[in-house]
This record gives sequence, C-alpha cells and structure tokens, in this order.
Amino acid sequence: MSDNRFLLPDSAVPEQWYNIQADMKTLPPPPLHPVTREPVGPEALAPIFPMELIQQEMTRERWIPIPDPVRDILRLWRPTPLVRARRLEQALDTPAHIYYKNEGISPAGSHKANTAVAQVYYNKKEGTRRISTETGAGQWGSALSMACNFFGLECKVYMVKVSYHQKPYRRSLMQLWGANVTASPSEETAAGRAVLAKDPDSPGSLGMAISEAVEDAVSRDDTKYSLGSVLNHVLLHQTVIGLEAQKQFELADDYPDVVIGCAGGGSNFAGLAFPFVKEKLAGRKLRIVAVEPTACPTLTRGVFSYDFGDVAQMTPLLAMYTLGHDFVPSGIHAGGLRYHGMASLVSQLYKDELIEARAYAQNPVFAAAELFAKTEGVVPAPETAHAVRAAIDEALRCKEAGRRETIVFNFSGHGHFDLTAYDAYLAGKLEDLEYPEEKLQESLQSLKAL
Amino acid sequence: MSDNRFLLPDSAVPEQWYNIQADMKTLPPPPLHPVTREPVGPEALAPIFPMELIQQEMTRERWIPIPDPVRDILRLWRPTPLVRARRLEQALDTPAHIYYKNEGISPAGSHKANTAVAQVYYNKKEGTRRISTETGAGQWGSALSMACNFFGLECKVYMVKVSYHQKPYRRSLMQLWGANVTASPSEETAAGRAVLAKDPDSPGSLGMAISEAVEDAVSRDDTKYSLGSVLNHVLLHQTVIGLEAQKQFELADDYPDVVIGCAGGGSNFAGLAFPFVKEKLAGRKLRIVAVEPTACPTLTRGVFSYDFGDVAQMTPLLAMYTLGHDFVPSGIHAGGLRYHGMASLVSQLYKDELIEARAYAQNPVFAAAELFAKTEGVVPAPETAHAVRAAIDEALRCKEAGRRETIVFNFSGHGHFDLTAYDAYLAGKLEDLEYPEEKLQESLQSLKAL
Repeated sequence: MSDNRFLLPDSAVPEQWYNIQADMKTLPPPPLHPVTREPVGPEALAPIFPMELIQQEMTRERWIPIPDPVRDILRLWRPTPLVRARRLEQALDTPAHIYYKNEGISPAGSHKANTAVAQVYYNKKEGTRRISTETGAGQWGSALSMACNFFGLECKVYMVKVSYHQKPYRRSLMQLWGANVTASPSEETAAGRAVLAKDPDSPGSLGMAISEAVEDAVSRDDTKYSLGSVLNHVLLHQTVIGLEAQKQFELADDYPDVVIGCAGGGSNFAGLAFPFVKEKLAGRKLRIVAVEPTACPTLTRGVFSYDFGDVAQMTPLLAMYTLGHDFVPSGIHAGGLRYHGMASLVSQLYKDELIEARAYAQNPVFAAAELFAKTEGVVPAPETAHAVRAAIDEALRCKEAGRRETIVFNFSGHGHFDLTAYDAYLAGKLEDLEYPEEKLQESLQSLKAL
Repeated sequence: MSDNRFLLPDSAVPEQWYNIQADMKTLPPPPLHPVTREPVGPEALAPIFPMELIQQEMTRERWIPIPDPVRDILRLWRPTPLVRARRLEQALDTPAHIYYKNEGISPAGSHKANTAVAQVYYNKKEGTRRISTETGAGQWGSALSMACNFFGLECKVYMVKVSYHQKPYRRSLMQLWGANVTASPSEETAAGRAVLAKDPDSPGSLGMAISEAVEDAVSRDDTKYSLGSVLNHVLLHQTVIGLEAQKQFELADDYPDVVIGCAGGGSNFAGLAFPFVKEKLAGRKLRIVAVEPTACPTLTRGVFSYDFGDVAQMTPLLAMYTLGHDFVPSGIHAGGLRYHGMASLVSQLYKDELIEARAYAQNPVFAAAELFAKTEGVVPAPETAHAVRAAIDEALRCKEAGRRETIVFNFSGHGHFDLTAYDAYLAGKLEDLEYPEEKLQESLQSLKAL
C-alpha cells in the first residue's frame, strides 16, 4: 500500500517564515497615507498594530524567526498533512499526480489560524490586552477568537449582521472560545450608529464592520486591530504552508509542476505559493496559479493601481490589482473571495508574470467540490472549491496531453459550516455570476479620481 | 519541542480486527428469536445482513483480516492521531498525562466511518445494491452515506423527522455524498404510514426510523439493512482505534493506566477499549471506564437481562444491560447516547467487572468540553464530551493523590454540527437531567414480562 498522506512530526513546524520581499526583483510601490499621499511610515500604523508586525510589514530580511510560543500553538495541528488525492486521480483517469495541503484540520477550520496565532502573540508581547476585528462569514473571526483565547487576550469581533443571523454556528464557535461577538452595524461605535440612524435595518457589510473594528481599536488604549489577509505580515505568517509542503514533497519523492490556491485577499494563496515562487525565481520551472470567482475577478479583470483597502476610504492607499473600492460583489457563497483588491505582493508577482490567474463561476466550482467530496471524502469550503476546480482542470489538461505532471493545491478550509451552499448547488439554485462589463468600468472610474 | 501528536503512516492501518470473543472467559448469552425464544442462527439474519457480517457476529477467531479495499479507504484518514493534551494538563495542573485518539478527523466526523466502510464492502461483495438505515442526529447516516458512495451502492437513510428539520447540515452532508434521505415517519413504508395515520405531525423517533429501515430492507431483494452500533461485528470493526493507539503509545514511550470512552450503544468505547481489555485479561493492570449520561444510565442503573433492541420489539432479544425497551430518554444533546440498551459484549465485560462505568449530567459534561476547546482548540461532540469529563476527573484525582498516571480517551467525534448545544450551555439553558427512580422502575417492569 503506497502512502496517501505525507506526515511530519510536530518538531517539523518551520522555525522561520519566508519573506518574499527579500527575493522579488520589483517590490510593489509603498502604501500611501490616505490624505497626504506620502509613503506611510511605521509610526502612522502604530495606533492600530504592534511594532513587530509593522516591522514585518516592511522588512526585507529573507527569514523571520517564528517565536517558540507561536510554534507551540501551531503544533496543535501543524504540520498539516500533504495528501495525494489518488481516488480523485482515478476518477479523472489522469496521469497527473494531484496533492492537497489540508489546512482544514486547524481547529478553527482554515489557514487563517496561522496568522491569528502570530498576530495575537506579538500583540500580547507589546502589552495589548484586547483585539478588535471584523468578520464576514466567520472564518477569520473564529481563528482570531481561538488565538486570543490561547494567549488570554480579549477578542472583540464585529460580524456582518446578515452573517451573524444566517451563520449562527460560526458565531457560536467564536463565543465558545470566549470572544465578544457583535452584529455590525452596532450601537457600540460612532460609525455603526451613523449607519443605523439612516437605516435601522441595515444588513451590514464587511466595509462597515472594518470601520467599526478600527474605530474600536483607535478609541481605546488597551486595544489594537487585526486583519486576516492582504497585508505583507499576514502573507508572511502563512508561508509555513508552502515550507512544510516542500519538505513533504521530499518525503513523497515528487515535486510540483503546478501550484494552485484560491485568492480573495491573497493570504492562503501566498502561504502555499511564495516558497515555490522563491524556487521559480531561482530558476526552477513551474507554474503558479491564483484562482478567483468570475463574480469578483480582481486579477483577471481588475487594474494595477493605488486604491483604498476599504469602502470607507480610511485605510492607506495600496498598490494592487483592484476592481475599485466602490465595487460591490454579488452574493456568491465563497464569501472569503469577495474582496475588491488583492494583496500588494501577490499583485506585483502577477504584474511581473511570475504567477497566473484564472476565474471560475459558481456551478463548475461546486461540481468540482462535489467530485472531491465523493472521491476523497473531505468537503471543501466554497472558497477552497475554486482551487479544487483549477486542480481538476489542470489534471484533465494533463490527461488530454498525456502528460505526467504533479499538481498541488491549498485546501484552505473545510466546508462544514457552508452546507447550505451545497444544498443550493444540489437543488440547481446557484447562479453563474459574471461581473458585468459596464458595472466594472463604473467601479474602475473611482480609481481615476484618486 | 516534545511531540504532542503521535502519527503513523498509512501503511500502519491495522491488517486485522481484534475479536474479543476469542479471549472472554464468559461470553454473553446468545441472541434469542423474538417469537420462538430459541437462539438465533445465521439463516435468521440472512434477509437483513450479508453472510460475512453474520459470521463475524458469531466467530471466536481472535484476528479477522481487514480486506484491502477496506484498508484502502480507511487510510484516507487513518491512522488517526494519538494526541497528548499538554495544554489541558497544564490548565489542570495535573501530574497525569492525558492523551486522546482523534476519530473526529474522519470526513464524516466520527468513528462511525470505520464500520460503515467495512459493512458496505461486505454488502457489495455479496451483491447488495442498496443499503437502508436509520439515523438520529445524523452521525451514523453520514458515515454510511460516505461509505456507500465510495463503493457505488445506493444509500437510503430514514432520518428522525425532528432532526431532519433541526439538523439540516447533517442531511446536506448525506445528500452531497449521494444518499436518499427521508424524514421518518414517512409515507414510504407501512410502518411509517401507520404512525402518520394516527399522528400526522409525529416528530419521529429512532425506534420508528429503525422499523422503517428494516421494513425497507426486508421488502426489497436488492437491499440490506445496516446498523451503526451494538452488534458484535460493529464493535469488531472499531477495534482499529485501540490497535493503532497501542502502537502510538510505543512511539510515545508511555502506556495508559486508565482507558476511557463514552458509551451509547458501545461501539466507540469498545473500539478503543477492547484491545486494552485483551491486555488486562493477560494480566496487565489498568482501568477501563465507560461514560454515559445520567439521563440514560444504562450501565450504572440498568439491569443485565434479555431485552429487545428496539421499541417495536422486532429485533432478536439481546442479553445486555438495559433500562427496558420502553425507556424514553430525555432530550439531552448527546443524541448518540440516548439508547436504552448496551452492546452485549460491553455488558458482559461490565458484569464481569473488567470495566467500570460512570454517569454525568449535561452541565459538567459541557463545562469539560468548553475547557477542552479552550486548551486544545478542538470542539468535541456532546457524546465525546462525556469522555472528556471523565478524563478530566481522572486527571484531577491524580493531582489530588500526587500520582503520575497516564489517561487516554476516545475523541469519538467533532462538534461542528452541534454548536447549538454549546449555545444553550453558554446561555445557562441546559438541564442536568437525572432519570427519575420511579420511571426507571416502571420501564424495568417491561423486562419482567419477557
């Protein structure tokens, strides 16, 4: 019986994160202050982030040591398994080898826990007693709640109101780990009250929840803010995924020709991909593919430009692929991929043609997830299912061409809390949403005014 | 960094199941035909089970080979990790070592998949095209749905109607794996129609769903029935858990003084415990503890007697600890522990004082689960939380006595689909239900009539 699963012991949790800024030939242009339009210095970010994270945002050191207390928590579930999806290969009748890195085994259910633990650690080290954040469907909120619990910090989560009511399980999970979860917009912040004054029945939005969480952090001395994707330090913390995968491919005596991740803000994609980008920059031949929804086609149809990270135009201006900060994505089930922008580092790599991108509509994505659940057993989150679709299509390409390539994708999270989306798919009720050209042009207009 | 997790490669999936009937000094009295009261022969069970499973029910061979196609599927998630719960130990400040065997990583979420895969395999081998079963909260139904999907058999699940509506996620999971799920009582069977004629709004019960599933199997040539606990062959298939754990304790250079599992029908308990009972029978000193709810105290307050396995008195009479087949347990959240009887093999071991039993009420059980989720991250199913409670209490006893004992419990399943129960606990809405003495005496009366 050949192995399906390539496992590493606790002691193999990486001791350093990989910082791709050390190796990129072109770095993305720096963030600009939203008012002065000057590059943002560390001091401007100090009210909301601890200094070590700000330094990680900007450093060009190649390897950043992972503190022992962080590794000690990561090893509760890390190294995650690298799994050869042999039953999927057989179902596709492909000569390709398909592997997935299973981040879904984290207690919070996704890769998000990797950066949550690190962020809470640095906050605790610098005296933060309380952390505020926003969450949509709840993946990030639950990861941060778990991490705060481990380090004994208070956690305040502003959860988009419509999700708060429609996804009660994620809310329960956060509360079980001790977080204080508030439906946003709330009466607890000026930003929330302003929205409620205009629209008492507002369902909320991620942009609104960000505004509440940032206001909460800025207005209290004991509180900092935490973000689950997009920023350089978040992507840095995710590189444990790719670093472990490289060791596991040695065990498997194999090496990927194609590396795949779904991309919303870019952090799970970067986590698997960046250590492989390093190899590519060093001359190794491989393809790296970011996968997004057609309903929010940031890389495939957006432009590379300075733009705000949020609708409310409060964040620094980031150089990135964006659909415009006014962009309102359709209500697809992959909530984690509904972001108008993309991490600067991922954007720059795409601009420099070091990575590829492609977009899929919902039905082919869920069809891939169904096949995966039926062959490998595991049920992917709707976001993750985008990577599954791309991996399957690459394997089918290999079949057609008779090529024995090796494909790996990041299984960023499980779908246990997303089964209503599967119900809708099985009932034939999912729409294959494309973002209409005229709306896209309209939202891109907002960039010209910057 | 010492290891938390003791991992084995795919190739270490056991090659044989351990059959405790080979080593028990006293075997339980044989099942009796419900009408003739004569011991049931293999031919009487042939209409509902395939012959190899019937033989496994009765054999006294010590080791039963696990067929390769079964091992090939088990290795999708097996061997499951044996995990040292160091953060829990620290929180309790106990000198004890606490380990758990994590069966929750199965794609179906619990140990139930171990027997589902084996049962479907033998059915397929003997030409069965379709399998019917019942499910309450859905753990068993989802495991069987997954297994039928892997072997290409149709799966028909009669799901207790109140759960069908209250636990839609488990229903979705079964449907994603291709099962046909019907709310029970249904119009599809005579048994269901009879109930609906009397009470069109019946919420259903496990007993009723069993009747529908058995009728379905008996009335169709292509269909057999499948049961997820209680029977000898089911317990046999679960022994991979304990066999793996023994190998993992060698890696950990440790050995349990106390082995713990929650017990409803008895299968997850037996799965971990039986290989250790073997050691105990061979002279090794260790304690083995079955944990049940005070609301359904089968071992701790029931009697050892012949009784029906179901309310409708259709099954053979089994010699077991029972509260009486008329017993109606309160609506505790640990649905999998609400069974009036206990597997014959487990019952006999308890009668012979080879194992202990204890019962807990809901609030202390959920308090233990909360502490576990906050220290180890992982959220236990309410059933599993009974084992967590007992493990914590054993560790506290060790602390008080200053003893460095080793404790292991079976983490039978995750609680991702049970978070409403945690909500109720956190809101202080759980009742600590005891089964009242007078009701108990009343239900035990039914046994005297047998």
